[in-house]
Amino acid sequence: MKKIAIIGLGLIGGSLAFSLKKAGHYVTGIARQEEVLNKAREASAIDAGSLNLQDISDSDIIFVCTPINLIIPVLEQIAPYLKKGAVVSDVGSSKQEIVAKAEKLMPKGTYFVGGHPMAGKEQTKFEAAEIDLFKDKTWIITETSKTSKKAVEQLEEVILGTGAKMLKLDPKTHDMVVAGISHMPLAIAVSLVNAVASSSDKENMAKCAASGFRDTTRIVSGDPLLGVDMFTTNKKAVLKMIGAFKKSLSKLEKIVKNSDSEGMKIELEKAKEFRDSIF
Amino acid sequence: MKKIAIIGLGLIGGSLAFSLKKAGHYVTGIARQEEVLNKAREASAIDAGSLNLQDISDSDIIFVCTPINLIIPVLEQIAPYLKKGAVVSDVGSSKQEIVAKAEKLMPKGTYFVGGHPMAGKEQTKFEAAEIDLFKDKTWIITETSKTSKKAVEQLEEVILGTGAKMLKLDPKTHDMVVAGISHMPLAIAVSLVNAVASSSDKENMAKCAASGFRDTTRIVSGDPLLGVDMFTTNKKAVLKMIGAFKKSLSKLEKIVKNSDSEGMKIELEKAKEFRDSIF
Repeated sequence: MKKIAIIGLGLIGGSLAFSLKKAGHYVTGIARQEEVLNKAREASAIDAGSLNLQDISDSDIIFVCTPINLIIPVLEQIAPYLKKGAVVSDVGSSKQEIVAKAEKLMPKGTYFVGGHPMAGKEQTKFEAAEIDLFKDKTWIITETSKTSKKAVEQLEEVILGTGAKMLKLDPKTHDMVVAGISHMPLAIAVSLVNAVASSSDKENMAKCAASGFRDTTRIVSGDPLLGVDMFTTNKKAVLKMIGAFKKSLSKLEKIVKNSDSEGMKIELEKAKEFRDSIF
Repeated sequence: MKKIAIIGLGLIGGSLAFSLKKAGHYVTGIARQEEVLNKAREASAIDAGSLNLQDISDSDIIFVCTPINLIIPVLEQIAPYLKKGAVVSDVGSSKQEIVAKAEKLMPKGTYFVGGHPMAGKEQTKFEAAEIDLFKDKTWIITETSKTSKKAVEQLEEVILGTGAKMLKLDPKTHDMVVAGISHMPLAIAVSLVNAVASSSDKENMAKCAASGFRDTTRIVSGDPLLGVDMFTTNKKAVLKMIGAFKKSLSKLEKIVKNSDSEGMKIELEKAKEFRDSIF
């Protein structure tokens, strides 16, 4: 049993609270609105609730589950109150910048380990939180030359308690990986929807859009500000993956232009094979 | 009650058989394999089954539900056996070429009306057929200067019986619409998967791929040959929509490059608004 503080009780923080409380930890939830704390209390997601960041001072492990642009500001505020040996982690979807800044901010005898659970939904508020959100999902934690092995072990034990699988990556690899499977796909889906929306046939397209279009563009219905955060904090990797995508699209475009049905078949089969190997 | 023949008992033909039989029509299923007919008989999807295309000779309405490249060859074979007043339709996902050829093939006193139900799944065989596949979906039928109003009325009555909503478009508009919401999105999803598959981080990407990547790329797991048919028979419209997509992506790419977070927000919100207005 550990004393765990969760700062930010949205989809991720709320789901983590449910899951860690069930696993037997003592969970303190910290939010900016009393209303959110009340919801979390009513749902029995937390043992204690506070509006005050200083109330992490007793916690062994602190998860910062705020929007990505608030992670470093929150760290700056809590740093003076961390107890000796405390481990801080986050759930931000890009890691290089955050981890570098966070490592510099940590007081002696406290530890930062970057994290990123690969779980999400369009809804981002506490109401969408689920106890099983992380079950069988991959939870990435980042390791650098400065990362404490002991801190990783402590964090790992807690994270595995959510039912997630753990994957250790360095921050740079993490950022390229999420650019490929999350941030670049969002850019593509946004561009796809906007291309349709600017067509002169858009009304008929809207009427005819079926499950294919619905699923391909689902991520577009998430919080736009999360998207801005992704593209801003992971710019370099996102642009690199957009470049790889454009190369791949140009190849297919040329094949279609040439009515090269054998070439189409090869591209379609290659993609199907890779995707079917994942899901 | 009409006598209806369905040629091709895959996902679409099979679902149509279930649905029209339930609506009280007499349904003859025609397939190339006895095994498929047996499955359809056992499932009570058809009243009669045949391996012989000539057995449409008694039918009022004939739906050609074969793969797209077989629609015209099948029409050529059944044309001499159609009874006077028979209405033939199809479910092919591109229409300009098929409708033009089909209209020329029809014997005097018989009618062709192109069709395309906007419903699908990855699985394309009879086993995947569902009685409610078309419920609340849009079923496009195409009208040209040669289209018989009476034939459209007969077809409409039958189609509405599946629970689908009907939309009349000319073949050219149809092809642009499906390029936008189906064929171009497939090209994009294929290119996205192949870009990830050719990354040096592809193993980690595969491990971390979550629901966002799964949904964005779902259509890639369909039958590759259907994709080849789409890109081949609807080449012009597909290339036009790929062009519109590339323009839209280039705009977003530039915004990301410039770290223009206000511009990102505008693009993300525009896409979300349009998508949320559809689903």
